[in-house]
Amino acid sequence: MSENNRYDIAIIGTGPAGVSAAITATIRKKNILLIGQASLSDKVSKAHAIQNYPGLPAVSGQELQKALLDHLASMDIEIHDEKVPLIYPMGSYFALQGAGGNYEATTVILATGVTTGKPFPGEEEFLGRGVSYCATCDAPLYKEKNVVIIGFSPKEEAEADFMAEYASHVTYIPMYKEEPQLAKGIEVLREKPQSISGAFKADTLTTDQGDHAYDGIFILRDSVSPKQLVPGLELDGPHVKVSRDLSTNIPGCFACGDIAGKPYQYIKSAGEGNVAALSAVSYLDELRRKEQG
Amino acid sequence: MSENNRYDIAIIGTGPAGVSAAITATIRKKNILLIGQASLSDKVSKAHAIQNYPGLPAVSGQELQKALLDHLASMDIEIHDEKVPLIYPMGSYFALQGAGGNYEATTVILATGVTTGKPFPGEEEFLGRGVSYCATCDAPLYKEKNVVIIGFSPKEEAEADFMAEYASHVTYIPMYKEEPQLAKGIEVLREKPQSISGAFKADTLTTDQGDHAYDGIFILRDSVSPKQLVPGLELDGPHVKVSRDLSTNIPGCFACGDIAGKPYQYIKSAGEGNVAALSAVSYLDELRRKEQG
Repeated sequence: MSENNRYDIAIIGTGPAGVSAAITATIRKKNILLIGQASLSDKVSKAHAIQNYPGLPAVSGQELQKALLDHLASMDIEIHDEKVPLIYPMGSYFALQGAGGNYEATTVILATGVTTGKPFPGEEEFLGRGVSYCATCDAPLYKEKNVVIIGFSPKEEAEADFMAEYASHVTYIPMYKEEPQLAKGIEVLREKPQSISGAFKADTLTTDQGDHAYDGIFILRDSVSPKQLVPGLELDGPHVKVSRDLSTNIPGCFACGDIAGKPYQYIKSAGEGNVAALSAVSYLDELRRKEQG
Repeated sequence: MSENNRYDIAIIGTGPAGVSAAITATIRKKNILLIGQASLSDKVSKAHAIQNYPGLPAVSGQELQKALLDHLASMDIEIHDEKVPLIYPMGSYFALQGAGGNYEATTVILATGVTTGKPFPGEEEFLGRGVSYCATCDAPLYKEKNVVIIGFSPKEEAEADFMAEYASHVTYIPMYKEEPQLAKGIEVLREKPQSISGAFKADTLTTDQGDHAYDGIFILRDSVSPKQLVPGLELDGPHVKVSRDLSTNIPGCFACGDIAGKPYQYIKSAGEGNVAALSAVSYLDELRRKEQG
């Protein structure tokens, strides 16, 4: 990809923080990539009533979702509907590994929300060595192999179907109550994953029922922990460590909304999205000034 | 005033930051005092179009103002329409000197916006010694005296009228174009104030036309600089120095919106109002736990 195809700002996440960042960055005439769920945040749309989003009294989650979608549409801002499991800081830009392709951006705004739940013991240790967060990215590596997919929502079933086109055997562990609707040949396992182990490479998933051997273990959550998302990112507990201007320890990388810390509130996230976007704009301006000499 | 008349949270300012703080604090069932202009922020109502308040696309300033007022009304939140020129930290609570009376609050949220314009030379030096920001507070001290009032908006004319009931002579210097509508006997002076001087007490106002002797010099701006508002407050340039949770160096005192730093954006202010309110709620909870334990 040439530098001409590089976005000014890649915004990861389509909750109130990401939407707000996209709106402000667009007003500032930046070339943005807004990437996340096209239906925005499930947390928003499932909220019963939101009483403290000033200007929208007692709005329902679905009404707020519609208001945000209408706002994006009125400014012709498009959402690239896919997950980004990995972002590499390359020095002068960022390389994004999306489920549907790779992208480059000069700056990145993380607005992916907080991960609920802890990683399984062994998960972080073996990430990239038998453990993966993206079935569509890594499926070709598991041709004729025996893999397991741990899916945290029914949306992940499509990834299992895709994997089944490559792997010789796919086991699917649903982490939810609904009955999975999967392609023929995929085995559904109703057990509780407890830990991942192996030697150099992960090869064993231990559940509440015992040990199972696999060549690859895929863990598909709604959001990836910030530690895994951007290598080298400094954290503060489960959150990304940010300054008041929402910059992180990695130059050009900003974070806003729930991922940047409590309180987990829609209006706080929307406000931070705006600040992160303006900080990214300042960073880009500064960069251009330096390049011009 | 007994402790029973003490508010949990006094919120100073009725822009998007103050309104947001009031909404969230009310949801959290705190006993609040929201004090500021009943018509909210002039900056908001005069804005032509606001494009980046997520959920309200291309809203006009007046529409946003109405949306915020409707939100407050829907929750029965009242605005005490007055200015607060001075807040004293008393250790376990704050004493507020309002133009219409004095108040006590366990915590304070500053949301007064930024002061535009620099103080006059001598202004800060002589504050409390011949220079005052509140005519209605200090009028009784100037019985039979010769005072000057520098008014930055027509709203201040009422303060000059009130002062004229006490002082033997009142001079009014309008810092705006409109012709002042003042009580009989008040002298209007169309000169540009330049500096304030005196020995122990201020006694001279120097304008572009020369020196004038006064017993008291009143400077009535839309907002007081944070340095004057709360004695001992730590600043960062023209802003109040805040942490990520919007606490200041004074325990129980929080700041949000423009006064807490750039960017000056409505959605950033609304987001920060929410965070400041929740931080004040946490502070109050912690205080109660200590008292009980």
